[in-house]
Amino acid sequence: MQSTISVNLPTQSYPITIAPGILDFLGEKMQALTNPPLGSGSNVLLVSNSTVFKLYGQRAIASLEKAGFKPNLCILPDGEQYKNFDSVLKIYKAALKSRLERSSTLIALGGGVIGDITGFAAATWLRGVNFVQVPTSLLAMVDASIGGKTGINYYQGKNLIGAFYQPRLVLVDPKVLQTLPWNEFRSALAEIIKYGVVWDAEVFRCLEESSNLKTLLDVRSHILFFLLSRSCQAKANIVAQDEKETGLRALLNYGHTIGHALESLTQYRYFSHGEAVAIGMLAAGEIAVFLNLWSRQEAQRQSTVIEKAELSNCIPSNLEIDKIMEVLSWDKKVQNGKVRFVLPTKIGSAYIREQVPPKLVNQILLKLKSRSSTSLMSLGKPS
Amino acid sequence: MQSTISVNLPTQSYPITIAPGILDFLGEKMQALTNPPLGSGSNVLLVSNSTVFKLYGQRAIASLEKAGFKPNLCILPDGEQYKNFDSVLKIYKAALKSRLERSSTLIALGGGVIGDITGFAAATWLRGVNFVQVPTSLLAMVDASIGGKTGINYYQGKNLIGAFYQPRLVLVDPKVLQTLPWNEFRSALAEIIKYGVVWDAEVFRCLEESSNLKTLLDVRSHILFFLLSRSCQAKANIVAQDEKETGLRALLNYGHTIGHALESLTQYRYFSHGEAVAIGMLAAGEIAVFLNLWSRQEAQRQSTVIEKAELSNCIPSNLEIDKIMEVLSWDKKVQNGKVRFVLPTKIGSAYIREQVPPKLVNQILLKLKSRSSTSLMSLGKPS
Repeated sequence: MQSTISVNLPTQSYPITIAPGILDFLGEKMQALTNPPLGSGSNVLLVSNSTVFKLYGQRAIASLEKAGFKPNLCILPDGEQYKNFDSVLKIYKAALKSRLERSSTLIALGGGVIGDITGFAAATWLRGVNFVQVPTSLLAMVDASIGGKTGINYYQGKNLIGAFYQPRLVLVDPKVLQTLPWNEFRSALAEIIKYGVVWDAEVFRCLEESSNLKTLLDVRSHILFFLLSRSCQAKANIVAQDEKETGLRALLNYGHTIGHALESLTQYRYFSHGEAVAIGMLAAGEIAVFLNLWSRQEAQRQSTVIEKAELSNCIPSNLEIDKIMEVLSWDKKVQNGKVRFVLPTKIGSAYIREQVPPKLVNQILLKLKSRSSTSLMSLGKPS
Repeated sequence: MQSTISVNLPTQSYPITIAPGILDFLGEKMQALTNPPLGSGSNVLLVSNSTVFKLYGQRAIASLEKAGFKPNLCILPDGEQYKNFDSVLKIYKAALKSRLERSSTLIALGGGVIGDITGFAAATWLRGVNFVQVPTSLLAMVDASIGGKTGINYYQGKNLIGAFYQPRLVLVDPKVLQTLPWNEFRSALAEIIKYGVVWDAEVFRCLEESSNLKTLLDVRSHILFFLLSRSCQAKANIVAQDEKETGLRALLNYGHTIGHALESLTQYRYFSHGEAVAIGMLAAGEIAVFLNLWSRQEAQRQSTVIEKAELSNCIPSNLEIDKIMEVLSWDKKVQNGKVRFVLPTKIGSAYIREQVPPKLVNQILLKLKSRSSTSLMSLGKPS
């Protein structure tokens, strides 16, 4: 099983290569890049976190050395709380020490946090060096590692500081998912469900037909490989048409308007990203049904898949809807007075609705809350 | 007198507008931008230094308010030593406080230091907000404000951290030069001489024919206006053909290979940038003559103009040539083993020579030093 997807941007193209065991061919795949070549024998800087490096670092290094690169290391602590300037400065220091040149390469080996920080450092060191992504979480594989959004958190704001900066190569090795906990796996499933609803009906049907989504954790699964490939393809297609998010790319925010509000309101402590997005998708789905844009039957199919992924299907009983609306209204402000929602029209396609009445949103959120049998505190802290 | 030059890049174009008194039309010119518009009524953040702000800040603010913008301020201390992360963090803080949106604008009012820092902040805040340059030094007008190189210094390295990020608009008001000291003015003349030698023979002849370059300080001068327009045009043309410096743009490094080595060797304390570049141009000229690429007569014309600008024409007697060569060899290393020189072939055109023998460079530097009647210590510290 190997699949290569090309992300074709106006100024640059790059491949996403998906294959079990491809981690051992990192150096070789980098060496195969041309236009311009990365240059064998030159310094590269591998950035990872302590957890991932322990598991996969040596294999990455061995592969780089075999291809003639000289790997230098920068190992950061593991966790979203380290997605900050201190970590970027650590990478800069390592880059200085490693004497990276403009044609050198920064490699991110890790999940979304490592990818985002490393990408930002790559975008800004010497005004931009080569950047290679080796995502090791499902979420990073299908989302963060593709499309060039890099960034770090600042004060309360996620990714307030960042840059659009494209990698030269993304290497996806499904085998590394065998060490991923189910909790993180299901969180990433929310993004795959999203691709199914807004872009690719085949992805949705595949999820629907799987009797047990936990079996996907078997990394030899052809279904996992299919979902990975099609999700990456969906993101690649969307990003290729709208790199800087001026239009179409906003489709990827399906479920994220309310999802972000929930995460932000609870200080990112109660919902995993996937859980919050799942609630957001349910809410957006209900709004679409109310506005006669989507059939009740398809919205029900979405709920069923979300439940199968063991993602939340309601708003915890002790969350105040008024507070969610307040956070949303702040979001509204930053978007020049408009509340935008991505609303599905049928499985596999959606559109961006500029003005959804806040009153309707409020009503839908109340409905989702009334179903609730869980309280906020009973939600597990995401790992 | 008004001249508008368009910088046409593959992904984006922007105007450089040159006119005496145009500072008072900053808001109006920003409002006139379309595709996409900057949006009247929205927050903007004006970044300046204390010296420049005292002179021109209120006029900029008045103009912005008149056009319906809400200007917020971030005033940094004056000096190259503040071109660092602390200053960028100050801008981020002000951006957060001002609630800048992705469609908001950062305006740099100042010389190259302010432009470079502000540009970097604009490139990285919310993954890129609009950026407007209002250069107030001659050097920033003809060089730093055009072309999208932004950055800050890090440890010993100049611009080690930065990004390529283009402004939406560059406003050049020659009237603000009336407060510029001659010392800074002549330093910038080195860059104008550079354009004359490598790109635009008309610029060179104009400098040659001016009986006294100090008269250019008269900001009503048509000659100053001509030199500004043609220099900006030269840079715009070169940058349009090679935004990311993969080829042609390297022409702009004429005089800079040795120039940077001299600055770096003396910790940026003895030569102004223009003085160092002037020596670099003399050396490159001598190399070109030695290699029979350039006529002795034209090299002499270059020397005459450099002297007329009161720029250094020799290497101070107490600088060791071996040390210059050592710094150059480090430069060589970062360029993958090649010493590159930009060498003139006739006034108005030059080319990039990949491999110049270090022995020849050494010999030319010795020759320039032997002419010397000044010592390093007798050079004034640049203001």
